[in-house]
Amino acid sequence: MRSPKGMLLPRIRAARVRRGNLYQTLRAAVLEGAFRPGQRFPSSRQAAADYGISRGLVEEVFTQLTDEGFLERGVGRGTFIASRVAQLTPAKGKKKRKRSPSPSRRGLAISANAACREPEIPVAFNAGTADIKEFPWERWRLLEARAARELGHEGLRFTDPRGLWSLRTAVARYVAQFRGMHCEPGQVIVFNSAQQALNAISILLLDRGDAAWMEDPGYLGARAAFGIAGARIVPVPVDDQGMRVDMGMRCSPRARLVYITPSHQYPTGAALSLERRIALLDWSRRNDSWIVEDDYDGEFGYDGQLLTPLYSIDTDSRVLYIGTLNKAMFASLRLAYAIVPERLVELLANIRTQLDGFTPAVTQMAMSLFMEEGFFSVHLRRMRALYKAKRTALIEALSPLVACRWQCPTRPAGMHLVVRHQDGGLVRALAEASSLDLALLSSYRITRASGDGLFLRYGALEISSLQAGAASLVATAARIRR
Amino acid sequence: MRSPKGMLLPRIRAARVRRGNLYQTLRAAVLEGAFRPGQRFPSSRQAAADYGISRGLVEEVFTQLTDEGFLERGVGRGTFIASRVAQLTPAKGKKKRKRSPSPSRRGLAISANAACREPEIPVAFNAGTADIKEFPWERWRLLEARAARELGHEGLRFTDPRGLWSLRTAVARYVAQFRGMHCEPGQVIVFNSAQQALNAISILLLDRGDAAWMEDPGYLGARAAFGIAGARIVPVPVDDQGMRVDMGMRCSPRARLVYITPSHQYPTGAALSLERRIALLDWSRRNDSWIVEDDYDGEFGYDGQLLTPLYSIDTDSRVLYIGTLNKAMFASLRLAYAIVPERLVELLANIRTQLDGFTPAVTQMAMSLFMEEGFFSVHLRRMRALYKAKRTALIEALSPLVACRWQCPTRPAGMHLVVRHQDGGLVRALAEASSLDLALLSSYRITRASGDGLFLRYGALEISSLQAGAASLVATAARIRR
Repeated sequence: MRSPKGMLLPRIRAARVRRGNLYQTLRAAVLEGAFRPGQRFPSSRQAAADYGISRGLVEEVFTQLTDEGFLERGVGRGTFIASRVAQLTPAKGKKKRKRSPSPSRRGLAISANAACREPEIPVAFNAGTADIKEFPWERWRLLEARAARELGHEGLRFTDPRGLWSLRTAVARYVAQFRGMHCEPGQVIVFNSAQQALNAISILLLDRGDAAWMEDPGYLGARAAFGIAGARIVPVPVDDQGMRVDMGMRCSPRARLVYITPSHQYPTGAALSLERRIALLDWSRRNDSWIVEDDYDGEFGYDGQLLTPLYSIDTDSRVLYIGTLNKAMFASLRLAYAIVPERLVELLANIRTQLDGFTPAVTQMAMSLFMEEGFFSVHLRRMRALYKAKRTALIEALSPLVACRWQCPTRPAGMHLVVRHQDGGLVRALAEASSLDLALLSSYRITRASGDGLFLRYGALEISSLQAGAASLVATAARIRR
Repeated sequence: MRSPKGMLLPRIRAARVRRGNLYQTLRAAVLEGAFRPGQRFPSSRQAAADYGISRGLVEEVFTQLTDEGFLERGVGRGTFIASRVAQLTPAKGKKKRKRSPSPSRRGLAISANAACREPEIPVAFNAGTADIKEFPWERWRLLEARAARELGHEGLRFTDPRGLWSLRTAVARYVAQFRGMHCEPGQVIVFNSAQQALNAISILLLDRGDAAWMEDPGYLGARAAFGIAGARIVPVPVDDQGMRVDMGMRCSPRARLVYITPSHQYPTGAALSLERRIALLDWSRRNDSWIVEDDYDGEFGYDGQLLTPLYSIDTDSRVLYIGTLNKAMFASLRLAYAIVPERLVELLANIRTQLDGFTPAVTQMAMSLFMEEGFFSVHLRRMRALYKAKRTALIEALSPLVACRWQCPTRPAGMHLVVRHQDGGLVRALAEASSLDLALLSSYRITRASGDGLFLRYGALEISSLQAGAASLVATAARIRR
């Protein structure tokens, strides 16, 4: 046994102890196995002298380490390393595990989905997000500062998880004006993103194993939400009139919920025909099912209005409507909304608090000021013209592909487009040969299908760079065909 | 059949059509069933004349309604209401459902949990959140503005879902300095709240049906997270040395994950003894289980440091550490973090994007400036002194209860405290008789137990109001005993 008069930590230079934190140094030494269990410590007086620090400080540290169970002290017996410390470091004979345990199968599946991860640097053609160069940044900062001033300390507190009343009112007015929808502000719930709204709704409406239709190809974020909720996903094919409602009814006539993007199908851009809208509503009424309508870029129909939302045709309060402001404004805004039957509002708000709490009040108030003072509709008008010009330029630049039996969409809407070819092998060869950042339509599919396409996201790209991208694509396609 | 020359909408005053939006008015009339299927419309020329608007506008509206499938037009035949419109309004013979379908059983259970909903107005004793009156608001606004300037357009974009590097670095330095923990910035992931981190971790590490221990009484947000993840919750009793690890091992020896608040058990305030820490780590190593350590108010130990985190004793990378900044700063900050083995970082980030996307960059950068420039440690020091003074005042004011065999905690930490009594009926009678906003300890329990307590949250209360609250509590208790 070492002499209790020896230096407490002979391997540690006194300078380190003096400079740093004696408690942390000693604790680290204990955890690293520098002491033998039962080893006696010098007295606090001795340690204080050795290291040139006050005895009071040493006493404090010894007390803390004793409280934690690392040391044992007895009146008149001195201070010892506790015997239990032996168990802290793995015995040398045992094999030390190098790796922690594995994640769950479900966790690996959901994290592999990676449906909602956007690229940090927008290049052709990965950029389906808002063009932020056109955003009225100065105006926004002024409104944020005003919102912070007006809210004062209220802005720092826990905020109503349903959302700020002023924003819920502004959203209700906005959807009335731009989408012809009638709802009360009390039916609006604010979320960080459409994806979060979809998660909360899936948790609220679905029990594990319940069937949920989704479009195929479709929005993979819905797959994630249903995966988290433990629902059984029923992929329903999509054609140029949107979801094949008849096939859904045949494959899964008793589904509990339908997730659908009727105005501008994601990712193909198709619009759901009125026949199918009626058939879907009619089936859902007979079957007592929910419909979740994701109007993910309802702001960006370029010729006249987008189609009437299902929400407006529903006479039965079974359609829940989701919209986002992160596309119309900018990605890091983190504001979206759901419009739901009133009796679901409190339930959803409670689920929201158990996901991540609430959305900060200042951003919500700044957004409601931006809407109520007319800046939002001005901004939308400008962005609509800009995205339309981008889309037109892109379709024009892609026209040589159409001559080679590629199909280009015609509906003038959105911040991305899909170009397709019956020969799936050709599409995949083109994607592989190209140096562009391209996504395959098939990566949005749940089931396999013949043919394939390229999902070109252009929202955030300059016209010149999307033209250069399209030219590169056309050139690679010509090279491949040879 | 009505004459094609008649007014299109005889029931609607022309003024309404002129003033408003012809498209929306006509569409609403169609949806309300104002027209018979097959009914012929007047020509666009006629309608333009009737309503005194341009023929071009009428043509546009008719085209949109035709595109949507509400109207049918034939060259030389005129414009008719489509026959499918008959199906839009429920037939009169059928009973119209008044209510939409029901939420799921799981959804109702989780929304009923309401574990994370904080009161909007802090009164005695519902106020376990930060005291925002003491927050250096002006300084924070300056840092936010500086962060917005420095980030420029980058601040509006999609942000790295792992978090901003500068904040991850600042957090790694902070936990090293204040909690004696060693981690790389690359192991830190930023979330909106500890609850969100817990949700992401549960989804990643647990498969449906996997057993997860949690403390009983414990943090009900963990119950929500495990409920969403579909795990089987194993409630493990708590005594004055924290979780009864031995009971956990007996009830559920093969659990996949343990959720624990070892430094300051929530809500009882107990600290997990070193014996139990060693036993827990040892069991988890043999059983290859994960440990999730929630250090939910690790900043607020008032006498010296809080106990060493399990994270620091773990030699095996099986402890995931969760901390929040929303308590040390202010509730609407929405910043928390998890410190995890490096190989889980990307997986958790992908799951995060599928929950709600990411945390905005500006707030993250402002927080990292607040930390790196020393404002955070100054603020923590002030708040620690303040909460300690509040706690001391509260315990002093509650001392008459101790004389009546109520138990008051001794560990000087936190923003709430639990006072207990062996007679659960007495506790519940007191809560019922009192006009204060009181929470029962039993409401944090999963299983029943004898005795009960009051969970008094005082963080955001003025000393005078918590003294008044305590006096009222003492008076009510005296009245009840009579």
